[in-house]
Amino acid sequence: MGASSWLDIPKGTHFSLANIPFGIVTTPRSGDERHAAVAIGSLVLDLHEFANHQGFVGLEDFTPSQIATFSSPALNDFAALGQEVHRRVRRYLQDIFAEKTSFPALLKDNVEAQNACLFQQDQVEMHLPMKIGGYTDFFVGKNHAYNCGCIFRDPAKALQPNYLHLPVAYNSRASSVVVSGTDVHRPLGQFLQPPDTLPSFGPCRKLDIELELGALLCKGNDLGEPIDVNEAEKHIFGFVILNDWSARDIQQWEAVPLGPFNAKTFASTISPWVILKDALEPFHVEGIPNETKLHPYLQETREQNVYDVNLEVELRAPNGESAILSRTNGRNLVFSFAQMLAHHTVGGCPLEVGDLVGSGTISGPEPGTLGSLLEASNGGKNSYDLSATIRRTFLEDGDSVVIRGWCGDDDSNIVGFGECSGTILPSIKRSWM
Amino acid sequence: MGASSWLDIPKGTHFSLANIPFGIVTTPRSGDERHAAVAIGSLVLDLHEFANHQGFVGLEDFTPSQIATFSSPALNDFAALGQEVHRRVRRYLQDIFAEKTSFPALLKDNVEAQNACLFQQDQVEMHLPMKIGGYTDFFVGKNHAYNCGCIFRDPAKALQPNYLHLPVAYNSRASSVVVSGTDVHRPLGQFLQPPDTLPSFGPCRKLDIELELGALLCKGNDLGEPIDVNEAEKHIFGFVILNDWSARDIQQWEAVPLGPFNAKTFASTISPWVILKDALEPFHVEGIPNETKLHPYLQETREQNVYDVNLEVELRAPNGESAILSRTNGRNLVFSFAQMLAHHTVGGCPLEVGDLVGSGTISGPEPGTLGSLLEASNGGKNSYDLSATIRRTFLEDGDSVVIRGWCGDDDSNIVGFGECSGTILPSIKRSWM
Repeated sequence: MGASSWLDIPKGTHFSLANIPFGIVTTPRSGDERHAAVAIGSLVLDLHEFANHQGFVGLEDFTPSQIATFSSPALNDFAALGQEVHRRVRRYLQDIFAEKTSFPALLKDNVEAQNACLFQQDQVEMHLPMKIGGYTDFFVGKNHAYNCGCIFRDPAKALQPNYLHLPVAYNSRASSVVVSGTDVHRPLGQFLQPPDTLPSFGPCRKLDIELELGALLCKGNDLGEPIDVNEAEKHIFGFVILNDWSARDIQQWEAVPLGPFNAKTFASTISPWVILKDALEPFHVEGIPNETKLHPYLQETREQNVYDVNLEVELRAPNGESAILSRTNGRNLVFSFAQMLAHHTVGGCPLEVGDLVGSGTISGPEPGTLGSLLEASNGGKNSYDLSATIRRTFLEDGDSVVIRGWCGDDDSNIVGFGECSGTILPSIKRSWM
Repeated sequence: MGASSWLDIPKGTHFSLANIPFGIVTTPRSGDERHAAVAIGSLVLDLHEFANHQGFVGLEDFTPSQIATFSSPALNDFAALGQEVHRRVRRYLQDIFAEKTSFPALLKDNVEAQNACLFQQDQVEMHLPMKIGGYTDFFVGKNHAYNCGCIFRDPAKALQPNYLHLPVAYNSRASSVVVSGTDVHRPLGQFLQPPDTLPSFGPCRKLDIELELGALLCKGNDLGEPIDVNEAEKHIFGFVILNDWSARDIQQWEAVPLGPFNAKTFASTISPWVILKDALEPFHVEGIPNETKLHPYLQETREQNVYDVNLEVELRAPNGESAILSRTNGRNLVFSFAQMLAHHTVGGCPLEVGDLVGSGTISGPEPGTLGSLLEASNGGKNSYDLSATIRRTFLEDGDSVVIRGWCGDDDSNIVGFGECSGTILPSIKRSWM
């Protein structure tokens, strides 16, 4: 059981005292100015305002320039301070919120500071937590890779020869990463409709989700300076849920021979709160076993190198009803984020603070645990009932997808990601198309 | 014949009065502070210093905040002012440098300003011209695509079914783009060496170049707002030469099914001077014909939609000798940059000022005109003599590759790109690899 708080923290909240995730908000008080904030229960603490109210005087050696990172419109500068600083700030804020806080005058007994710094979550607008320079999407959800291989090839050759030797990845498009709640227009593009031999152009007909975890980086590496797999965790600021929306028909037509492009660049949605690496530390678990003898640069000492994150995908249909598409777990990965970073940089590629690294789609081995509709519909062959009124193959206009993730089962100490959501709007076709 | 200059502009220079390319320099005077500059003959004009010496008083309606863009460490802010401003500034500088300049007091007859603003090119250091947010590499050099298809498949199916319907592309890695002159360490990585069935790890054994043209953008588009193909040229700031170094063995092992990754992210070199779109306007020419009926969003009104750029690749061996690897031309493209931008955004992907868009490898149809060693060596099967002393299949440590590009054949009016060069250094293997 964790410490209790003088705040009224609802049972079952994703944002318990054990969490303290960081995000970027605008508040009724800040207007258009974006500030760093943390979530606690159903509230957020605006860290810029808290700093203005001397909230950090109790945090020893926390310098004015470090405090100033909370006034930046993205968390990059705070992230760049390094994990030791994140750790100290998180622990300090846990103290500030604790029933027996060491600093009651700073917030607990300070109504003026509370009024200036604390907001209900439904009062604030969330923004992209970081300025994302690079977005790399891996493919290390082994069950997903296997399922896709079965759909497009056959079970005997489902996994490509390289698959268990390295974390397969491609560069995706950082500029189209959006924050949870952003509407997503169905993309237009080219696709081939058998038995046609010429491509059609129009709204995507196979619009899909991809349930992923994303890591945001707090430390880069120079060109030509690979990251040691056993040092790689130091580069991770924290984690978000990632929905890598995918246009399957566009992808299938365009992706030979250079990989997915427009199929992935119309939007990729991330949850707004960054769960610090420290907050997930108690939830380490072993991933999918890999019997392959790895080259030394991928040999990680830590065996419990992925996270026991419960994941749930809800579809809300335009008729107002909703159904659970999938329940799965973040342990369904065959390489860790540390291994992804080691592989990403082994040839010398420089990573930067704010880069987003996606796990690839996370699927369990069974129906009901799948991270994409491609898998659930067997490549679009089978539509299926999600509820009495919701039948789907792929997404329809008006559908909303809400992904939730959380660690722990003690109602008072959940470390959760909140929601990663988006609603599909119709395509907009221009006159010149 | 163009106007003559009061400056001593060498015959045959890439940087004639007809050019006026923009770059970012540090000079003996600026120290570590980066300034915008233009190249003229064998000189550069530091635009920050020129502004400080009231050099822009003759340019009507050029505001202090516009002038301040020359003091930025990258050309993004200047680029974002738009093509009309680029055009006016270029013409104004052509006037400043002209024998019969309208403003002799600003530079021609002003020794103090000359001393402060003009530098020999070998006195200055060139830097990346822009902060590059996204780097997308296309594949529209049809001869290259055909040659690769013949190497990896067969002539009958050399081009994939999608190839002539859309400009094929993948997202590459912006953070590993470097400026000409930057050394390139041979990357380490995984590759399969037949008849092995397990991958090796070590220095790339098939290190290659890719000769490309790159466009740098001066105008973005919002998420969900596609660019009209016939408006797309307005988004282009200018052009550079791009050498997209490629690790063929790493690529072949890693790229299934999601495309190239580490094979392309250890370095991509661009020439330092951005040739403004206006400067290349006289050199428009038709590309490789495409009989395919394109969807309307790719139907460009302009028929002469690529550029007649002479391209030349020189290899300088460690023994001090050199040989020409290839002589080819920028017209060997089957889609234009406008079509690339239209396709890139048709699904809604946002582009940003400073984005780099590569053409893909430019090869002619014959030996001696090929843009990669992969093609010249027939997939690495044949080594061949470049000179009496230089025999190559792929690049060796110590090799330097110098790519030059230029338009025009009048010695006094060449619009050239200068050089895009890099030297291969050995791999550095770490203890933990």
